[in-house]
Amino acid sequence: MIIILGAQATDQQVDDVIERIESLGLQAHLSRGTYRTVIGVIGDEDKISAAPFEAIPGVVQVVPVLPPFKLASSEAHPKPSIVATGNAKFGGGHLGLIAGPCAVETEAQMDAIGRAVSEAGASVLRGGAFKPRTSPYAFQGLAEEGLKILADTGKKYGMPVVTEVLDPRHIELIDRYADMFQIGARNMQNFVLLTEVGRAQKPVLLKRGMSATVKDLLMSAEYILSQGNPHVILCERGVKGFDSLTRNLFDVAAVPAIKSMSHLPVVVDPSHATGRPDFIPACALAGVAAGADGVHIEVHNAPAEALSDGPQALLPEQYAQLADQLREMFELVNKNTPKTL
Amino acid sequence: MIIILGAQATDQQVDDVIERIESLGLQAHLSRGTYRTVIGVIGDEDKISAAPFEAIPGVVQVVPVLPPFKLASSEAHPKPSIVATGNAKFGGGHLGLIAGPCAVETEAQMDAIGRAVSEAGASVLRGGAFKPRTSPYAFQGLAEEGLKILADTGKKYGMPVVTEVLDPRHIELIDRYADMFQIGARNMQNFVLLTEVGRAQKPVLLKRGMSATVKDLLMSAEYILSQGNPHVILCERGVKGFDSLTRNLFDVAAVPAIKSMSHLPVVVDPSHATGRPDFIPACALAGVAAGADGVHIEVHNAPAEALSDGPQALLPEQYAQLADQLREMFELVNKNTPKTL
Amino acid sequence: MIIILGAQATDQQVDDVIERIESLGLQAHLSRGTYRTVIGVIGDEDKISAAPFEAIPGVVQVVPVLPPFKLASSEAHPKPSIVATGNAKFGGGHLGLIAGPCAVETEAQMDAIGRAVSEAGASVLRGGAFKPRTSPYAFQGLAEEGLKILADTGKKYGMPVVTEVLDPRHIELIDRYADMFQIGARNMQNFVLLTEVGRAQKPVLLKRGMSATVKDLLMSAEYILSQGNPHVILCERGVKGFDSLTRNLFDVAAVPAIKSMSHLPVVVDPSHATGRPDFIPACALAGVAAGADGVHIEVHNAPAEALSDGPQALLPEQYAQLADQLREMFELVNKNTPKTL
Amino acid sequence: MIIILGAQATDQQVDDVIERIESLGLQAHLSRGTYRTVIGVIGDEDKISAAPFEAIPGVVQVVPVLPPFKLASSEAHPKPSIVATGNAKFGGGHLGLIAGPCAVETEAQMDAIGRAVSEAGASVLRGGAFKPRTSPYAFQGLAEEGLKILADTGKKYGMPVVTEVLDPRHIELIDRYADMFQIGARNMQNFVLLTEVGRAQKPVLLKRGMSATVKDLLMSAEYILSQGNPHVILCERGVKGFDSLTRNLFDVAAVPAIKSMSHLPVVVDPSHATGRPDFIPACALAGVAAGADGVHIEVHNAPAEALSDGPQALLPEQYAQLADQLREMFELVNKNTPKTL
Repeated sequence: MIIILGAQATDQQVDDVIERIESLGLQAHLSRGTYRTVIGVIGDEDKISAAPFEAIPGVVQVVPVLPPFKLASSEAHPKPSIVATGNAKFGGGHLGLIAGPCAVETEAQMDAIGRAVSEAGASVLRGGAFKPRTSPYAFQGLAEEGLKILADTGKKYGMPVVTEVLDPRHIELIDRYADMFQIGARNMQNFVLLTEVGRAQKPVLLKRGMSATVKDLLMSAEYILSQGNPHVILCERGVKGFDSLTRNLFDVAAVPAIKSMSHLPVVVDPSHATGRPDFIPACALAGVAAGADGVHIEVHNAPAEALSDGPQALLPEQYAQLADQLREMFELVNKNTPKTL
Repeated sequence: MIIILGAQATDQQVDDVIERIESLGLQAHLSRGTYRTVIGVIGDEDKISAAPFEAIPGVVQVVPVLPPFKLASSEAHPKPSIVATGNAKFGGGHLGLIAGPCAVETEAQMDAIGRAVSEAGASVLRGGAFKPRTSPYAFQGLAEEGLKILADTGKKYGMPVVTEVLDPRHIELIDRYADMFQIGARNMQNFVLLTEVGRAQKPVLLKRGMSATVKDLLMSAEYILSQGNPHVILCERGVKGFDSLTRNLFDVAAVPAIKSMSHLPVVVDPSHATGRPDFIPACALAGVAAGADGVHIEVHNAPAEALSDGPQALLPEQYAQLADQLREMFELVNKNTPKTL
Repeated sequence: MIIILGAQATDQQVDDVIERIESLGLQAHLSRGTYRTVIGVIGDEDKISAAPFEAIPGVVQVVPVLPPFKLASSEAHPKPSIVATGNAKFGGGHLGLIAGPCAVETEAQMDAIGRAVSEAGASVLRGGAFKPRTSPYAFQGLAEEGLKILADTGKKYGMPVVTEVLDPRHIELIDRYADMFQIGARNMQNFVLLTEVGRAQKPVLLKRGMSATVKDLLMSAEYILSQGNPHVILCERGVKGFDSLTRNLFDVAAVPAIKSMSHLPVVVDPSHATGRPDFIPACALAGVAAGADGVHIEVHNAPAEALSDGPQALLPEQYAQLADQLREMFELVNKNTPKTL
Repeated sequence: MIIILGAQATDQQVDDVIERIESLGLQAHLSRGTYRTVIGVIGDEDKISAAPFEAIPGVVQVVPVLPPFKLASSEAHPKPSIVATGNAKFGGGHLGLIAGPCAVETEAQMDAIGRAVSEAGASVLRGGAFKPRTSPYAFQGLAEEGLKILADTGKKYGMPVVTEVLDPRHIELIDRYADMFQIGARNMQNFVLLTEVGRAQKPVLLKRGMSATVKDLLMSAEYILSQGNPHVILCERGVKGFDSLTRNLFDVAAVPAIKSMSHLPVVVDPSHATGRPDFIPACALAGVAAGADGVHIEVHNAPAEALSDGPQALLPEQYAQLADQLREMFELVNKNTPKTL
């Protein structure tokens, strides 16, 4: 960590900072310039990052030099991690394809969609049973009934299933039906939920919050990892932007950014990132071209009748065509020498 | 709601949309232009907003014309609401001042700060016992011990207390100690938590999420209100911005924006909005000048020793001076004819 | 255009709006609901968009239904445009590769870079002679001397050249040396400059502003097109974001978004979008996967000695490898059925 | 400046960086930690900031410690500057009120508005003669005819006038009629224009760009100041935000932020910041409460007939009421001890 003091800082203030550093068992390295004094702090990183040096009089800036995540970091774990469930694999040269409707609605709907995405080669079936809806008056999901339908459809078509968890009190219930937990964007910093899914020993699909930096996302992954659950898949699903043309702003550079700092697999979700079915194929392909280890796409057999987010779903036949293109693209990308220099 | 079809829309597609509208018991009003066809939808707003018209082929845009919140809306409830606890009042010509440290640390710390902010005229004492920390390795709060210290300090100085709730399983516990629940920015769309505090019959301080629009905030308030709890105070605490000079971007226009659509009281929180103690007074005064019904400020007697967010706290003497200025400003603003035309 | 009046709108206000519409020679279609009155306006779009209906008392919202750009729109011009200069082509199945240093520095530097990117298969050589630098104390470019070096290097290696124009008074001078004008992001809404390069009959590379929506970009293209110059190439180079990990936020969805509304070719610039050489290959490939018609990349033979933006440049050997991958990717993408459904 | 090298940096790389620093006549201070090596650079700041240290192999981060603006900085010029024209003063305890229509349309319109704002106590009359319109088909201003009407109206009512300059070739012309140049938000980084108005010796109202940081704004001011023109007034007029409720996001914290770093006066423009006449009074008052030295507001006598931006204008009677409130607020603020601690 680097501590910077301003031109007006007195000798006493500089001494106070150094004393504080040394009182924590850390070392201080001092450089005095004409306009600024710079003090490097060396020692136990946990102690360093916990101390509020910014609040010491005279200090104008504090610059951390080490990322605050450890288990998620590729400095500690240089080889890419592979997260697997059933026959699906994400990372280390494997492409995982997650597909299904926004919400589980009926057996017939899930059967139609499950069969279609299975035939298209998707590896994980998704479907929401507990839905985080902006409006309290909107459809909130089928709860346990939805979980049953999802699990049954998954079994029938040989696909592991993923569903969103909203409430720490539901984890046991969901654990009985699902193969993978999803933490939604709105809960990326719901640390209670992160800690609880960290205790479960199943894969977690962790979606990036709409105003979260890549480092924030890795810190949230760290919550799960620090509970002993190493099976974390990160998901880029768009951040808040100023152009209302798309629902969110698909941050494709998050893929190489995460790969440069972490060993965890990364999935892209162009459905939520754009909210525009006509832009989904281009963005899905872009994600794979950028190095993503998986693609998450919402598919519905009757979008105009859907109870939730119908307008952003692909039709089964559109998905089948796209899935072929994604596999072809993934093959090309993997054949090449690494894209990140 | 208005449904817009593109230049290529066929007569059949227009008929399909009208048929769909009428099948829901709604009325359709058709206007065909050269390049666009516009269909107005009239009838039960809940049915209208639930239907995914965007997914019908030929539709290029859907424009809602009514806000989706009802209980929070000033159309339904034109008079400003007053939320009260103990001697503190927010709204309808009353200014509420919330002050205290980020986290409850020790009895001595709370006593020093409680006395200081009480003498400065603050009306509600704040302090976190469960802290939502970005890092799993950071101080997470004293839990029940912190609640006890907070409640005792509040009693001693005659101030109601507010503390953040992170976990729906803690509501009963917190309810025993606190006079007001706080829902933090990261949980503004934790709909489980909103529903649960809606069932409790205590005031709720609902903080705006970092990527939430003003309408999103009002929808989250609607979750609480729709459970039968009318005691909601909204809090503007900064949204995500691109200038790293401040921690967040203080959106002071949210104050008149909320007032133009809702009857609920609004508080500003310049501590979290800016993260810069030297900018807090200017922004607090700006909030009151813009019509805020309260101000939330973090105060610490030893910021450089604080276990959480010390660097953004005001010192007790700085707070005392500011509180005087805020009251003077509030008096001036209230003397004037309404600021929003 | 659709005009919406609120619940409190009087009959007189509704009549006033209709009268105003009809006084402009336009037609009004009225739908009155319980809470809102909706008036569709039909007729000459220029008259419609020029009238400030929002300012009529009682009006709460005005919704335009047609895009305000015409010449740039694919409604008017459904076939993709191809922009060509020398042997380079952008659009309609052709991939253009623009490469070169941020700034022209010396003959030797340009010769080394020109030879390298020409051998790597780049089709247009770039280099700045007039540099828009944030600081008045930074290197501002070699001016005419830089233009000469650029033009000579282009000729030697058989590549057309592109350079940025900052000042309308320089257009004649630059026209003598360059084959393509570049309008930088900071000047995307410098309407004087847009009008002037619209009068020149050379291709224009128009970069998206950091806070410009896709529609804003198309409106700026409209300025150039409306002067009679149809040779416009649009460039996505990142918008302002909140994550400081990258210099800007690469909006790859802008590629399908532009393609859905316009016939103009689109180029991506991952150098400026990310500012991170280690993320450039992934983002360049993502852009081509999303349907881009070209890629703009900064290349420097000695980044640590560069006079401008060295840290974001690729080395010649990195560029050569990437150019191969981009061509392979483009071939795969073009072989497939169209990506935008 | 501080240069940080990663864990993998070799001794050779560290030596290379130090050698590079010393070859520029600068001093290097080295601190080696377990995970990072930190090198402080001390010496001539111009040399330091010009060198692309980020591009040296092994370097992972470069942290500037001094602001890159000098003439605009309060380190060099601690006393607040006062900018004056005619009887209007901005800064140092003086409140300047700029008011007038978006565009000059007719003599009668300017006369009506000029008289009204003069009676309301505005100190500077504004009106656009050259308009930067998003659409090439929109009204572009009356050019010289508009300048004449503006100047004549100003003379009649004893008010200096301000008008926007878009084209460096118009400076001489505008200089003949106007008392103050305005640089609009879209041209904040039009460095050609900044340099040219820097050569003129008249006050410049410099508006913040929609994606400009406060430091970017100060760097643009530096362009004007470095040409020898010290009469610069900065203007906060909203940055790009994600909530479409307002046209832009009014960043009121920019006022104390600028005051903490610069001696230049700051004006707020709630008309462009919000685009909502019903929010303008609240935001204008907020700006003054935060310490602004002036307020810029658009006023029109017939907004529904205006040729440009009518819907965001206040009516003359609304402005008169607000101007009284602003003066009262300014008096209260100035009476208090400084707001920025």
